[in-house]
Amino acid sequence: MSISVRNRLPGTIERIVSDKVVSEITIQTAAGDVTSIITTGSVKRMNLKVGDNVLAMIKATEVSVEK
Amino acid sequence: MSISVRNRLPGTIERIVSDKVVSEITIQTAAGDVTSIITTGSVKRMNLKVGDNVLAMIKATEVSVEK
Amino acid sequence: MSISVRNRLPGTIERIVSDKVVSEITIQTAAGDVTSIITTGSVKRMNLKVGDNVLAMIKATEVSVEK
Amino acid sequence: MSISVRNRLPGTIERIVSDKVVSEITIQTAAGDVTSIITTGSVKRMNLKVGDNVLAMIKATEVSVEK
Amino acid sequence: MSISVRNRLPGTIERIVSDKVVSEITIQTAAGDVTSIITTGSVKRMNLKVGDNVLAMIKATEVSVEK
Amino acid sequence: MSISVRNRLPGTIERIVSDKVVSEITIQTAAGDVTSIITTGSVKRMNLKVGDNVLAMIKATEVSVEK
Repeated sequence: MSISVRNRLPGTIERIVSDKVVSEITIQTAAGDVTSIITTGSVKRMNLKVGDNVLAMIKATEVSVEK
Repeated sequence: MSISVRNRLPGTIERIVSDKVVSEITIQTAAGDVTSIITTGSVKRMNLKVGDNVLAMIKATEVSVEK
Repeated sequence: MSISVRNRLPGTIERIVSDKVVSEITIQTAAGDVTSIITTGSVKRMNLKVGDNVLAMIKATEVSVEK
Repeated sequence: MSISVRNRLPGTIERIVSDKVVSEITIQTAAGDVTSIITTGSVKRMNLKVGDNVLAMIKATEVSVEK
Repeated sequence: MSISVRNRLPGTIERIVSDKVVSEITIQTAAGDVTSIITTGSVKRMNLKVGDNVLAMIKATEVSVEK
Repeated sequence: MSISVRNRLPGTIERIVSDKVVSEITIQTAAGDVTSIITTGSVKRMNLKVGDNVLAMIKATEVSVEK
């Protein structure tokens, strides 16, 4: 399987905070912490837990540049 | 100045490819290359060049998780 | 510092509603109210309060047109 | 008809720049210029022209805050 | 009225789960269920209910491809 | 492998239009055509062609509702 999404940064989940609808996942990567908001439904379906090795996936059109 | 955007990954521009409307910026970060699509207007206004030290900026709602 | 994000509309915060993970910020601008969903973590880190002068920041790829 | 999108700012198109796939639309609003990237297919289908009165439409999850 | 948003898939709401700030709407379409996160403010303003016939609206820049 | 992205609609590519930086992919699904803007780099890397069976992938936070 291949995916058009250009950015997939490897990391480890260090924290999960959940409301009923959305959750905040903090992923430790080599470039610093990456914070993700996904549905709590996905957290349950994927059984995401602190310590899991994951990829932070980001579409190129969603990345801005600061200089 | 502070910004609500949670993810700001430091890196160096290694490639810029431009059409008239949008450009693709490749940023080398410690977590791997990050690809960004921004307007060519911003590339010009910010005078972005290969070798520039920048931050790749990503809103938390735009980050998905793959396991 | 410069940012590739093309749209930065000045305004004043008139309301903040928070859940544990995300908050809704209503910003009064000259073009009408702008509603933003950001992480509650950012609301705390930035110490956002009603009455604050802020910018509503929007990437150009996120703007649609209605006629 | 009603739409869940929270932000709809009235304005006038002042500039259209097109590549084959995407176009940049500059919309003059009371809060300043708003830049939008949409498909060139939509520009044609909607027959968008300089001087048109339009709304810039932005989902609340796409708005960040700067202070 | 016309809208630049390219994707508008017809369907029926089969489930609504709400926190104070955001809600998850599950829409049954001919291509399978589509999940949407919108503000709870919009759910109230539009009076969205299970069984409503709606369109799931998605900007083309937000669609990725998997093969 | 599992992905947090909630929406993955099966379809067939019916058209690809490319500029240097981004391409427009039209995907025929059971719910109608879905248009996607991805980088031309991904089109080449994935060797996307008319007739390919693919999934249109959309994060739940990117779906709005119209009624």
